[in-house]
Amino acid sequence: MNTHSTRLKALRTLMKQRGLAAVIVPRQDEFQGEYVAPYAERLQWLTGFKGSWGLAIVGLRKAAIFVDGRYTLQVRQQTDTALFEPRHLMEDPPVNWIAANLRKGEKIGFDPWVTPVAEARKLRAAAEAVHAKLVPLPRNPIDMVWPDQPARPANTIESHGIEHAGVAAAEKLSAIAATLLKQGADAVLLADPASVCWALNIRGSDVPYTPFPLAYALLRRKGKAELFADTARLTPDARKALKDIVQCKPPGDLPARLAALTGKTVALDPALAPEAARLALVKAGTKVIEAQDPCVLPRARKNETERQGARAAQRRDGGALTRFLKWVSENATKGCHSEATAAEVLREMRAESNMLRGLSFESISASGPNAAIPHYHLSPDDARPLAAGEIYLIDSGGQYLDGTTDVTRTLMIGTPTGEMNDRFTRVLKGMIALSVLRFPKGTTGAHIDALARAALWKAGLDFDHGTGHGVGSYLSVHEGPARISKAGHMALEPGMIVSNEPGYYKAGAFGIRIENLLLVTEAGEIEGGDRPMLGFETLTFAPIDRALIDARLLTREELLWLNGYHARVLEQISPQVDAATQAWLKDACAPLT
Amino acid sequence: MNTHSTRLKALRTLMKQRGLAAVIVPRQDEFQGEYVAPYAERLQWLTGFKGSWGLAIVGLRKAAIFVDGRYTLQVRQQTDTALFEPRHLMEDPPVNWIAANLRKGEKIGFDPWVTPVAEARKLRAAAEAVHAKLVPLPRNPIDMVWPDQPARPANTIESHGIEHAGVAAAEKLSAIAATLLKQGADAVLLADPASVCWALNIRGSDVPYTPFPLAYALLRRKGKAELFADTARLTPDARKALKDIVQCKPPGDLPARLAALTGKTVALDPALAPEAARLALVKAGTKVIEAQDPCVLPRARKNETERQGARAAQRRDGGALTRFLKWVSENATKGCHSEATAAEVLREMRAESNMLRGLSFESISASGPNAAIPHYHLSPDDARPLAAGEIYLIDSGGQYLDGTTDVTRTLMIGTPTGEMNDRFTRVLKGMIALSVLRFPKGTTGAHIDALARAALWKAGLDFDHGTGHGVGSYLSVHEGPARISKAGHMALEPGMIVSNEPGYYKAGAFGIRIENLLLVTEAGEIEGGDRPMLGFETLTFAPIDRALIDARLLTREELLWLNGYHARVLEQISPQVDAATQAWLKDACAPLT
Repeated sequence: MNTHSTRLKALRTLMKQRGLAAVIVPRQDEFQGEYVAPYAERLQWLTGFKGSWGLAIVGLRKAAIFVDGRYTLQVRQQTDTALFEPRHLMEDPPVNWIAANLRKGEKIGFDPWVTPVAEARKLRAAAEAVHAKLVPLPRNPIDMVWPDQPARPANTIESHGIEHAGVAAAEKLSAIAATLLKQGADAVLLADPASVCWALNIRGSDVPYTPFPLAYALLRRKGKAELFADTARLTPDARKALKDIVQCKPPGDLPARLAALTGKTVALDPALAPEAARLALVKAGTKVIEAQDPCVLPRARKNETERQGARAAQRRDGGALTRFLKWVSENATKGCHSEATAAEVLREMRAESNMLRGLSFESISASGPNAAIPHYHLSPDDARPLAAGEIYLIDSGGQYLDGTTDVTRTLMIGTPTGEMNDRFTRVLKGMIALSVLRFPKGTTGAHIDALARAALWKAGLDFDHGTGHGVGSYLSVHEGPARISKAGHMALEPGMIVSNEPGYYKAGAFGIRIENLLLVTEAGEIEGGDRPMLGFETLTFAPIDRALIDARLLTREELLWLNGYHARVLEQISPQVDAATQAWLKDACAPLT
Repeated sequence: MNTHSTRLKALRTLMKQRGLAAVIVPRQDEFQGEYVAPYAERLQWLTGFKGSWGLAIVGLRKAAIFVDGRYTLQVRQQTDTALFEPRHLMEDPPVNWIAANLRKGEKIGFDPWVTPVAEARKLRAAAEAVHAKLVPLPRNPIDMVWPDQPARPANTIESHGIEHAGVAAAEKLSAIAATLLKQGADAVLLADPASVCWALNIRGSDVPYTPFPLAYALLRRKGKAELFADTARLTPDARKALKDIVQCKPPGDLPARLAALTGKTVALDPALAPEAARLALVKAGTKVIEAQDPCVLPRARKNETERQGARAAQRRDGGALTRFLKWVSENATKGCHSEATAAEVLREMRAESNMLRGLSFESISASGPNAAIPHYHLSPDDARPLAAGEIYLIDSGGQYLDGTTDVTRTLMIGTPTGEMNDRFTRVLKGMIALSVLRFPKGTTGAHIDALARAALWKAGLDFDHGTGHGVGSYLSVHEGPARISKAGHMALEPGMIVSNEPGYYKAGAFGIRIENLLLVTEAGEIEGGDRPMLGFETLTFAPIDRALIDARLLTREELLWLNGYHARVLEQISPQVDAATQAWLKDACAPLT
């Protein structure tokens, strides 16, 4: 804790030198992603807080740290609350702090590279409302006082071949150019590395779990795109693939390149693009158009190659998971295994395909009451043993060149209680309701989210997370804009991949989640139907624990789906596994009546 | 048609005299309601169009009429398209016409009394974008050229007794004063007659179907409310009830009363309040706060007295409807009855209670292919006979002092086809899904709308209207803000009454709709539940045609609901009807297996 007091002091000394009454330190980096590289763990360096989302505001005498509902306990464990007063990010947001603590004429500094345009706008309005001033800082204030800050990653950038991407980068760039023409824009700044990767058919490894390089790109309506990453990072294949369509520029050149766009019109996505880019454009006399990142929708609508890739990746991943489920059933009660060793066994089984490029997120491997924490974070020193009479929940995924996976299974070790059976079956009913759903075009995730909950609602229960998120193609496992949740206001479109993961959590006791990935498809003509419908193709294949199902609670249609699903699991997975696993799987997939 | 050409000419002469390049003629009156009095049928007088929503823009040489999807055919039948070019109100809205047809410096006139603040804002922005000017006219331009325009209605205003209202007007006014205090407002203009009626516990009869007087009210944080209606209209009871809390002012005094608020702060709802009121306030140097009408939410959340009233009204109404259903079953094939005579028979049966104050909307009485038109408008000269082998749909409701009803039943005359059975049963499944639903607080109508559709979706079908609308208490049968539809973004709250009316329409063949009213209730504690849930109490009691149900398509739970519902119908309705109807009803409510 002393460390953080010293660091805070150093920051305040800097603030005094610069005449700043406060500075803002968000957890986000320059790319607004879920994972940041070690150099960008500025919030953690300053406060000790290790959550994936949060923000501190440091004044000369007091400071606050803002976190969301997931982290209200954790922040008190990891942060000295005498230094940083914890606040709720949504209920008592940073703008309130600004209104209450800043005075007329005071300056509040922020790094415009880690702050998106829309966020800066909100902060600026809050500051101006009390006649204070939001000041963009030329250098990140933490970087100036962090002596041993790690270097920025600059790992290899690979080409993502057409056999996986399905559409050539040149073709994607033409389509984006057409969008720019419609918008009346000459260029667009891609600030999301996932968009850069998608548009240019490249991948990287600058952060864990998501295979992208941390790089911006500037796409023009006419002429080559510019990728802000040193050429030396490109593999020979990537260099060859990009030669005719992309110029590499040192990352530091971006402000100058933006300034060179004087007189042009440049589009940027206010939710993603750094305020620094907007400021550079405005200073250069460039017209700025705020519009959604043009890659978001085409990236979400997977093409035929990506769909085939997803099927192959999920099948392969299901083989590894099935072998793991058998392993758990045989080893869980031996007394020598824990959440940590189990997660490692699964990682190894995934790796045995020799096609695993990495996990798609940190596995949630949770036994007993830990499974009741939806975003349970395993600390290896403190891993809970697997034990009879408990539920074990494993939520994990892999990154493969042909697709990104995400799957959750909940297993009974020993004999379930009646309550566990009831809850599991209700969760399963919700998961089946979406799996079999047909819906008209234009339907959003918010419209269908309740179908995954109605069986729980009937028992006075619910789960406090969305039902599903979009998934990328060898990209981010959490990819917008598709989602199934009360806030999912985008229409689901053919080619989108979404998770279907209802759950139930009994605090201090047990947790349940069942997750398959779904591909949105055209439902095909239905006899007597009067309009085109969409539906879901289930992509994930792994057995659902029969011991936890109370078949009496299932309707005939639900039972039909379950038995049909298990028949398909058997068909897809058996050819990939050895005879012993085949025998185990046959039992695990036996029809229920 | 010659008539409309002459009228259009008279309007254009006026426009030239006033230097106007165009004028706007909406269908709405000064109160933005669903029904308007004859004096306000200005759009119909000018164009011949009889729809319930629409707007004309008349230029010096050309004119357009804007209607929504319901009226694209009808407008061509009723309007001379050589005079008024039909346009789609949403796809090609009035602002487009303004952008394309007005030139720099030209003036477009509008009546700021029939145009709400928000609408005027949109029109003004469209005019200013082409450097034209939107000009508020001191008198409605149609009124100036309509020689035999009917007089404004000024029917009796009654007191709505505490035995039906449940809460005294003085108490409601105090609650509104507290809201004003919070908003920092000194007064609020109520522009919606339903809000005026709710706040002051009065009712009237200036328009068909909705029992309100057309009147504004000005409520103050301190001091008496002002009702803009001549005192002479009040019944002695109403005069007595309002004496201590309300002053009556002549309607024409409103601008002067608003002007007298100089230096004060006045709230108004931009979706409802006339632009004329805002202009008067701004001219007087008054601060205007735009906020939702403070009556909307408390009016929607029915109090205990209103809930009891709704139960009684629905029970009574169900008795009349049941006698009618028996009558149809016995008379439909006699060859002498039509949609029109049937509707009249039902009205008479409702009136026999001696408690009917009027219908709550124009009954939709539709046989055969006419039932496939969701908003079928019966023209008495052209009424279709009831006939064997066809479906008959009756959607109707009554106004009673204790409640407003709205119910739809679909009946088979003769033997249904397999397709009719299948479709009817799918609609029923959707209707049951909502009837049995429990849901957590915060759930909106948009979240649960899909539950009423999923069974149709499965067959590639859907219906193109919302699933349900809010219903008033002896007020409007279509009352916001509660609704069950993709656009229903308000949380459902205890006490709200909403309709549950999924349907299916096969154009040119048949139509199906089943509608009950539901009261949102606290669901009560559920054993093992972990959060408070809401649910629905079904208010409507009338048999659902068993001949149209294919019980094999129902789940055990759905069948249980249906048989339970019919048992309750029998219990509620039998005591109200004669022995023959009791016998008929017993058969109609016999359990299905």
